[in-house]
Amino acid sequence: MNIRLYNAHILTMEKDREIFKGEVWIKNEKIVYVPDEEELQRELNTEDFPKISWDREIDCEGNLLMPGFKNAHTHSAMTLMRSLADGMPLDKWLNEKIFPVEEKLTEEEVYQFAKLAILEYLSSGITSIFDMYLFPEGTARACMETGMRCVLVSGLNDFVFSIDEIEEKYNKWNQKKSLISYKLGCHAEYTCSKELLMKLSALAHKYRAPVYMHMSETAKEVRECVNKYGMTPAVFMDSLGMFDYGGGAYHCVHFNNEDMDVFRRRRLHVITNPGSNAKLASGVAPIKDFLEKKIPVAIGTDGAASNNCLDMFREMFLVAGLSNLREMDAASLDAMEILQMATANGAKAMGLTKADVLAKGKLADLIMIDLHQPNMQPIHNMAKNIVYSGSKSNVKMTMINGKILYHKGEYYVGESPAEIYKTCERIAKRIFEGSGI
Amino acid sequence: MNIRLYNAHILTMEKDREIFKGEVWIKNEKIVYVPDEEELQRELNTEDFPKISWDREIDCEGNLLMPGFKNAHTHSAMTLMRSLADGMPLDKWLNEKIFPVEEKLTEEEVYQFAKLAILEYLSSGITSIFDMYLFPEGTARACMETGMRCVLVSGLNDFVFSIDEIEEKYNKWNQKKSLISYKLGCHAEYTCSKELLMKLSALAHKYRAPVYMHMSETAKEVRECVNKYGMTPAVFMDSLGMFDYGGGAYHCVHFNNEDMDVFRRRRLHVITNPGSNAKLASGVAPIKDFLEKKIPVAIGTDGAASNNCLDMFREMFLVAGLSNLREMDAASLDAMEILQMATANGAKAMGLTKADVLAKGKLADLIMIDLHQPNMQPIHNMAKNIVYSGSKSNVKMTMINGKILYHKGEYYVGESPAEIYKTCERIAKRIFEGSGI
Repeated sequence: MNIRLYNAHILTMEKDREIFKGEVWIKNEKIVYVPDEEELQRELNTEDFPKISWDREIDCEGNLLMPGFKNAHTHSAMTLMRSLADGMPLDKWLNEKIFPVEEKLTEEEVYQFAKLAILEYLSSGITSIFDMYLFPEGTARACMETGMRCVLVSGLNDFVFSIDEIEEKYNKWNQKKSLISYKLGCHAEYTCSKELLMKLSALAHKYRAPVYMHMSETAKEVRECVNKYGMTPAVFMDSLGMFDYGGGAYHCVHFNNEDMDVFRRRRLHVITNPGSNAKLASGVAPIKDFLEKKIPVAIGTDGAASNNCLDMFREMFLVAGLSNLREMDAASLDAMEILQMATANGAKAMGLTKADVLAKGKLADLIMIDLHQPNMQPIHNMAKNIVYSGSKSNVKMTMINGKILYHKGEYYVGESPAEIYKTCERIAKRIFEGSGI
Repeated sequence: MNIRLYNAHILTMEKDREIFKGEVWIKNEKIVYVPDEEELQRELNTEDFPKISWDREIDCEGNLLMPGFKNAHTHSAMTLMRSLADGMPLDKWLNEKIFPVEEKLTEEEVYQFAKLAILEYLSSGITSIFDMYLFPEGTARACMETGMRCVLVSGLNDFVFSIDEIEEKYNKWNQKKSLISYKLGCHAEYTCSKELLMKLSALAHKYRAPVYMHMSETAKEVRECVNKYGMTPAVFMDSLGMFDYGGGAYHCVHFNNEDMDVFRRRRLHVITNPGSNAKLASGVAPIKDFLEKKIPVAIGTDGAASNNCLDMFREMFLVAGLSNLREMDAASLDAMEILQMATANGAKAMGLTKADVLAKGKLADLIMIDLHQPNMQPIHNMAKNIVYSGSKSNVKMTMINGKILYHKGEYYVGESPAEIYKTCERIAKRIFEGSGI
């Protein structure tokens, strides 16, 4: 499919390229040309300018095209548990509500509820997810069928998955170019024995691969790790050689200078989850400190059981608002910096270096932001409008791998949303009715 | 117009009435009947059940009807300054950016930018606003023309408005039943001389009227008031007899026990603005303490210059999330309590006792929440879904005074949004170009 998107404002997220009026040209899954209007006029008149026959030409009506959001930490199928257990601290929430439900899951449920999550991602302009959950094959199937780009990360812990399984999945999913790739990871320090972690580190060395995990989400987690190992989670993991080939961590709320030094030295990615951290009263991550120490920050929604929605607009505002409160400084972060986190930084954290910006040769993972809505008017500053005023209602189109999966409120994912809701309601009923959860 | 809304889930917000399946019947500006399905079947079969000829019957397709949100603190026309000046502390922001722009305003600009705000209110399910701003006639005209319900509140201070003007407006706008009413108020302690405040208190006594103002938004404001008067703003205002007939205050971030005692004793309303307080790094209001002391809390967006959007869904999530962080307790507030703040409590704070709940004889100010969207699925708990996962994209219909003003993404306000955007862009250009602001 050759698609021409014209009459657009364009924010490529390339360094030093301002928002301009122009076009994005797409050939199959790739972007082939992103000219501004002037450049296009000039080049069109040259002799060797290639003629392209378009399958589809879309008038963007002056709206904004930008890279899709990268949801750099989520547990898609936890949509099953949305609004099921709110108002509990993290450990109680995990042990009394989440784990008992998860014992009942099969790949089929994960597949169905991942599809529900994907609809939500698309309506929020999310074009890639970094997903850690049980039965990753279910999530992968949902993504392949609907067209979502997904980086799976192994949620290894003492109770589910083995090192062998993970190695097998790692090889299986990274073999060929597809919408799915796979990263090594574990759930967290507090759910893994040291022995298991050492095996994971050995695997990371074998494949010279980065490793990802939940880290320092709560003060309690850090305190208990220090009691157990005499080290904070970041320092402990590093002492096992876990990060010798890079990687990163989710949450990173309770970080000290030493932890940040590990992250800087190993070039690790922080993936912040402000909505989940606020709702579960875990704390506010020191985003400004990370940036000052040149530690790259990406943004994730976390799962719908904790957050409870998969909305990058809410997360972006929270990154700003919570940081301002933490620093007692209304200028603690910049809107464009936050857009960077939500797009290009996320892509880098997930290893999706071809999906970071809008430029020739990059993957056509992009969104159209509707500027013709009251919350985007007047236009003093588009980036600020998006970060501080934007909402999923501004997402007019979501394209992944050159395919339009969401446009003007309609989904193009091969199955009707109504069917997906119905199936999910039926499963939820079966799991919860009379279960006492 | 007689309108029948059927096949709906209904959340009336009356105490002890759970969500049920039923209908809402509307005759002109009022709700005349809110039966559940069983009651309706029973009554329909009685002989004296009145026959109504419907002008319009709307199948709600199982979606949720509930009272519209009450935006209990806003400055509508500040949409003019959205994304104009971000990243500044409150006093700098006011003095260097906001006040210089406001010097250039006329009633015409206020009228136009209030219309822009009204579009945003409607798309966020807001059916009444409590508006304090310059040229209130401009805001009133915008509300009357579009159909928005508005309680104006005088923003008296040392620089604009006089006591006589306010008294005249008070009498003018409260004379007859209309969409507009008027409350006494002043901007804040720090922008009013003691003499002026004493005059306002005298006026409140003359009309036995409640008074509203910004209060204790920043720590600096409280500190300076204590330095000046030896009292916090709440105690100082009370010492002037300002609250002898009730009222309330916006923000209330930096409150001590004595302040709360004033509010409890005088039965005052707290109107919290978490988005603005976070973004401007003002702090987090002690919502849990207010509730424990039985001080009623309502919610406002504040103006678009500070927040920067007029979205009650974001505010509701922030009330929960910020309170949880402040209390270090993931269960600090309950979702239904927050819905109460955003609807019935707001109505009470604004004196709109006929627009608080869905019941016979109440004003038909209501919204339809689209449950057939991924962020509302599955339905374990509708109230939690709305507060923790809801977004303005879930607002399917907004009705004020029995009139449908927003439905399925279209506005019915007598003028096209495109026209309003165009006019606003033109004005913004005229004001800001070359102004150095």
